[in-house]
Amino acid sequence: LVEDSVLRSIPLFADVDEEVVASIAETGHEKEYSRDEVIFDQGSEAEYLHLLMAGQVGMTAQSSDGRTAVLEVMRPVEVFSIASVLSDAPHLTGAMALEPCWVVRIPAAEIRRFTDEHPPLARTMLHVIGQQFRMIVRQVKDLKLRSSTQRLGCYLLALAREQNVEGEFRLPYDKRLLAGRLGMTPENLSRAFASLREYGVETHGSRVALHNPAALEAFAAPDFLR
Amino acid sequence: LVEDSVLRSIPLFADVDEEVVASIAETGHEKEYSRDEVIFDQGSEAEYLHLLMAGQVGMTAQSSDGRTAVLEVMRPVEVFSIASVLSDAPHLTGAMALEPCWVVRIPAAEIRRFTDEHPPLARTMLHVIGQQFRMIVRQVKDLKLRSSTQRLGCYLLALAREQNVEGEFRLPYDKRLLAGRLGMTPENLSRAFASLREYGVETHGSRVALHNPAALEAFAAPDFLR
Repeated sequence: LVEDSVLRSIPLFADVDEEVVASIAETGHEKEYSRDEVIFDQGSEAEYLHLLMAGQVGMTAQSSDGRTAVLEVMRPVEVFSIASVLSDAPHLTGAMALEPCWVVRIPAAEIRRFTDEHPPLARTMLHVIGQQFRMIVRQVKDLKLRSSTQRLGCYLLALAREQNVEGEFRLPYDKRLLAGRLGMTPENLSRAFASLREYGVETHGSRVALHNPAALEAFAAPDFLR
Repeated sequence: LVEDSVLRSIPLFADVDEEVVASIAETGHEKEYSRDEVIFDQGSEAEYLHLLMAGQVGMTAQSSDGRTAVLEVMRPVEVFSIASVLSDAPHLTGAMALEPCWVVRIPAAEIRRFTDEHPPLARTMLHVIGQQFRMIVRQVKDLKLRSSTQRLGCYLLALAREQNVEGEFRLPYDKRLLAGRLGMTPENLSRAFASLREYGVETHGSRVALHNPAALEAFAAPDFLR
């Protein structure tokens, strides 16, 4: 059983009637995962809508040489598996705890029933899936239109913008995960960091400083459509 | 003004009440585009939901060197700009007629109002956007986990499967567009076709034959999660 107040704290449920949120909470449960624990496998049926309350989760896929690659990292509070749940279809990616995680799970059939019966919840679902859709369209543009070094440059510019810093900032996760997020190998990522030195990018472990953002922008050509 | 019967022929509206479809039709209009005509620009406000009734439309983006790249090709009957319309946000990609097209346009504000007021329409929108979301997740997996030659192999295998043919089939659009769809340059695409010869891929213009699908599958490692 999940406390109403937990669900109420999630933007997904902000516009939904209190009684409806309470009923949804009754169908859900909380679950903790330890580091590296599998949350669900690629190809498995979507049994739950997942709400990530704490910790980081990697969306994973098997690469053609059998490795498990992390395609995307989710940070709290975030909903995941929403498209599989609403389409009642198998998961296209797996999910794995990258550190100890706290997840609320709502059974897929229940969330589909609530979404059918409560238009404000349907509206919110449309909004959330629309936002996630746009996030992934940006990734496709990035992957198709930029070199891997430009992708890294855009990522660092977005991070600096998001954290609203002029000086130094930290990468939110390790370089192996960052490589997967940007669609390159760890070796390629190291080479890309080295290439960006000439545009004023300085790194010490996970600390990054952008000494010449204008030059980096001219090279990486970000677009800031949100 | 759009005929009800036109909208009724679209799966999007199959489960929606007749009177609602009639009201939606009243707000819409039909528009023809000639080859290479811009339907909307990247970054512009989403004014309409677009229903492609005939012709092919390319979803476009500016690459960092200023070229217009076609990221995806839509074929009838397909809905496009749905995420921008529902999120009331600027278009992340442009759209361009790749050949003479017939499009039905429904004003964005009207479609948001109808979606709010009619739960069966909201349900259908969720289904459509969920399907498009999954389509694009598959693209991201493809772009991040496979080489460009493997991507071409997977694409040809999917095409053969879709057209359910053992022998020869035709590419649905020209090689320049195919290169954009697969995230490579036309030169890379030619090299990839040449590399696939050793796995039994034979091409003559737009005609393709797969003489050894098993070898091609072993090389390209497709997954058929839908």
